[in-house]
Amino acid sequence: MIGRHRHLLGLEGLSREEILQVLDLATSMKEVLARPLKKVPSLRGKLVVNLFFEASTRTRSSFEIASKVLSADAVNWTASASSVTKGETLVDTARNLEAMRPDVLVIRHAAGGAPQLVSEHVACAVVSAGDGAHEHPSQGLLDCFTLREKLGTLEGKTVAIVGDVSHSRVARSDLHAMPKLGAKVRLCGPPTMIPQGIERLGGCTVHHDLREAVEGADAVVMLRIQHERIGDPLIPGTREYSKLWGLNARKAAEWLTPGCVILHPGPINRGVELSPEVADGPRSVILDQVQNGVAVRMAILYLLAGGSPAEVSAAGARS
Amino acid sequence: MIGRHRHLLGLEGLSREEILQVLDLATSMKEVLARPLKKVPSLRGKLVVNLFFEASTRTRSSFEIASKVLSADAVNWTASASSVTKGETLVDTARNLEAMRPDVLVIRHAAGGAPQLVSEHVACAVVSAGDGAHEHPSQGLLDCFTLREKLGTLEGKTVAIVGDVSHSRVARSDLHAMPKLGAKVRLCGPPTMIPQGIERLGGCTVHHDLREAVEGADAVVMLRIQHERIGDPLIPGTREYSKLWGLNARKAAEWLTPGCVILHPGPINRGVELSPEVADGPRSVILDQVQNGVAVRMAILYLLAGGSPAEVSAAGARS
Amino acid sequence: MIGRHRHLLGLEGLSREEILQVLDLATSMKEVLARPLKKVPSLRGKLVVNLFFEASTRTRSSFEIASKVLSADAVNWTASASSVTKGETLVDTARNLEAMRPDVLVIRHAAGGAPQLVSEHVACAVVSAGDGAHEHPSQGLLDCFTLREKLGTLEGKTVAIVGDVSHSRVARSDLHAMPKLGAKVRLCGPPTMIPQGIERLGGCTVHHDLREAVEGADAVVMLRIQHERIGDPLIPGTREYSKLWGLNARKAAEWLTPGCVILHPGPINRGVELSPEVADGPRSVILDQVQNGVAVRMAILYLLAGGSPAEVSAAGARS
Repeated sequence: MIGRHRHLLGLEGLSREEILQVLDLATSMKEVLARPLKKVPSLRGKLVVNLFFEASTRTRSSFEIASKVLSADAVNWTASASSVTKGETLVDTARNLEAMRPDVLVIRHAAGGAPQLVSEHVACAVVSAGDGAHEHPSQGLLDCFTLREKLGTLEGKTVAIVGDVSHSRVARSDLHAMPKLGAKVRLCGPPTMIPQGIERLGGCTVHHDLREAVEGADAVVMLRIQHERIGDPLIPGTREYSKLWGLNARKAAEWLTPGCVILHPGPINRGVELSPEVADGPRSVILDQVQNGVAVRMAILYLLAGGSPAEVSAAGARS
Repeated sequence: MIGRHRHLLGLEGLSREEILQVLDLATSMKEVLARPLKKVPSLRGKLVVNLFFEASTRTRSSFEIASKVLSADAVNWTASASSVTKGETLVDTARNLEAMRPDVLVIRHAAGGAPQLVSEHVACAVVSAGDGAHEHPSQGLLDCFTLREKLGTLEGKTVAIVGDVSHSRVARSDLHAMPKLGAKVRLCGPPTMIPQGIERLGGCTVHHDLREAVEGADAVVMLRIQHERIGDPLIPGTREYSKLWGLNARKAAEWLTPGCVILHPGPINRGVELSPEVADGPRSVILDQVQNGVAVRMAILYLLAGGSPAEVSAAGARS
Repeated sequence: MIGRHRHLLGLEGLSREEILQVLDLATSMKEVLARPLKKVPSLRGKLVVNLFFEASTRTRSSFEIASKVLSADAVNWTASASSVTKGETLVDTARNLEAMRPDVLVIRHAAGGAPQLVSEHVACAVVSAGDGAHEHPSQGLLDCFTLREKLGTLEGKTVAIVGDVSHSRVARSDLHAMPKLGAKVRLCGPPTMIPQGIERLGGCTVHHDLREAVEGADAVVMLRIQHERIGDPLIPGTREYSKLWGLNARKAAEWLTPGCVILHPGPINRGVELSPEVADGPRSVILDQVQNGVAVRMAILYLLAGGSPAEVSAAGARS
């Protein structure tokens, strides 16, 4: 359980305390990852099934490694998109898998709401590993974890999120989490990439000028521009995008405060949203995000597979 | 060893006692699966290789989970069909794999007899996970296990198997096992889908009318109709098939006895062989089959990887 | 560490002593593989990631099994070639993976030098599992291990390597290792398949007549002819190739010394470079190579993941 929640379908429904429960546990988990022997028996005898309807070696591997470090068994089930033309079939697949008695079902799906639908039909815990343009809660949590680690706290901090906010499940999860931890969020992108009226959600302002959005910010989350959307008459080409919304060394030097860190959910389109100098530069915490992702997913799996916060330090101690 | 057998290539050669040996052990294995910590060390240090020449996430995952619950290592080897144009190559692949010292080789192949061929060239145990239209022995065993669990016994029971019997390795394995456990089998389908003279095998009768086949039956196994066979001039279209050979709520209510259970090897073509009401209704034991499949495969792997029945309860006790 | 090396990128840079360190340890590892329970806790809590940019179930499985026998966790990351159009992206992928804290990254890539490039950007150990036409060091080591096992020593022995030497990373690794262990190497193939001036590397002679190359040899390594190169105007067709450079029962009987063994890196093109009689005959040690491959890879992973030779026998003893 994460607080009152049996599943992790998004961050919208999580309270500040529930988010902090995961982040605090992830801190212990990160210590486990830093050991020469990265193995604790906490989830021995538990089964995590990764049900991926969209290709994602990166996120899948992160959940798989998180499972294994906790001694859970991990099974990967990669579904071809063609076998899931109807919601009915998705539920059938999930119920079949559930009959094999997993403790946690990690689902990535191109349709927003798919993990929610599954959660209504199975007894085990369900985690969204990204569903359509809805949410990517473990990414939102690892972004918060990384910001807390680098900035000390999110309280009173300003985070700019730049790019195609409309189609970004990462942006959505960040936006549901960061304000609860006290951060102000600035959303920035071309008008066609920011949902109309999103500021009414609270905790965020909308900007259409990159400089205005990032000046004075404590952190900038650069979103990945999706290649399939380039060419869309509503949005600019790669070069135009890079010029207006990309971050390069010159802009970073002139516009960002000294302590401002740069996040990106990966994989980076180098030279589009980020220049290589910035992606690999001292402000970049992108690889920290990847490592923190394993720790955060360990915390999520631990809590949902039946662990309780009290057991954690004990679990951590028994290596 | 399952009785005198070093391999599980089909149920045709298994005696009643050998089948019961697997089913009885699977009962203990199902208890392991029901525990909060689903892990016994019974096959620690044993290696199970899943060699799948046909895509089958479902059966492959079931064997993989069965391996892991028993603490065996599992390695998946998915072969593209193209690399197996000659039997020679199949044997080469298997002998190469065998050189890596697996204890059990689980093989799915589009050609009936492929696991048999492999078993003649390797020293490790071989399990057919479905070979052509020949047999699918673990499915036949899990069907028997599920029937015994739901009906108490197969002795004196009547089981109707409905659909494309000719092309069904599931029907073939069921037919080789159920009569040995005392059940009478009724095979039912369009004349083009029932092999000529199959009743001479013994233990079964042939029917071409669904009502006649299912009335008074204690269980009905609805086979999956293969999409690639729809359109074949010898068989009816989906709608016609569904009307004549599919089971819906009305037919089930009018024709089936109150205690009659419905099985299906999955995945279901909803609305074709089974209406959703029936697939998800109280008679359906389809998800029980999936769960029992893991237990039955644990029993198979345990016996073939060198376990003996005597060690089982001890193994079960050491969690 | 293998001697002074944190990575295994090729055998060119390895000394005789470093090669022998791996082979000696592999001998202990092979004993572990021969046990009924093939499991030692030596690498418990260590993580091996297999990053394969070229399909290779065979080599990947060998590394995966080696990892599991040593109790390491193994994660497979199969990259589609399309995602790696730029070296930059390869490094990005590797650095992302490295952030998940693997101890060893095993890389197969179509571009020679790719593992070297990665090793310059990550903190974990890197093993080449075959890179372009550069090297395939674990194959070279298992060839040496197999020769030492079959011939007692490589000192003073003569090894013929036959086929498309130019494009063979196996030939290259063999050529960098065998002379260091005291063997004389004869390279043999059509002139278009032998790099000009290769004999200047030392330790080898070049031959364009098969009989001349294999007569008196203690071992013959038959290389796999790559189908995509057949049809190339510079090389002969399959039939011509087989006639001139293939080994069949008659040639083997007439030309080879009684104790001469035959190696092949697999998979074999039966009837092209080797006739089935020879591939499966008493001289063939091809399946020994496959089994030794697991033992050699266990040794490589053990040394690079932080084991020391002194701990080995202790590790072997604790099963």
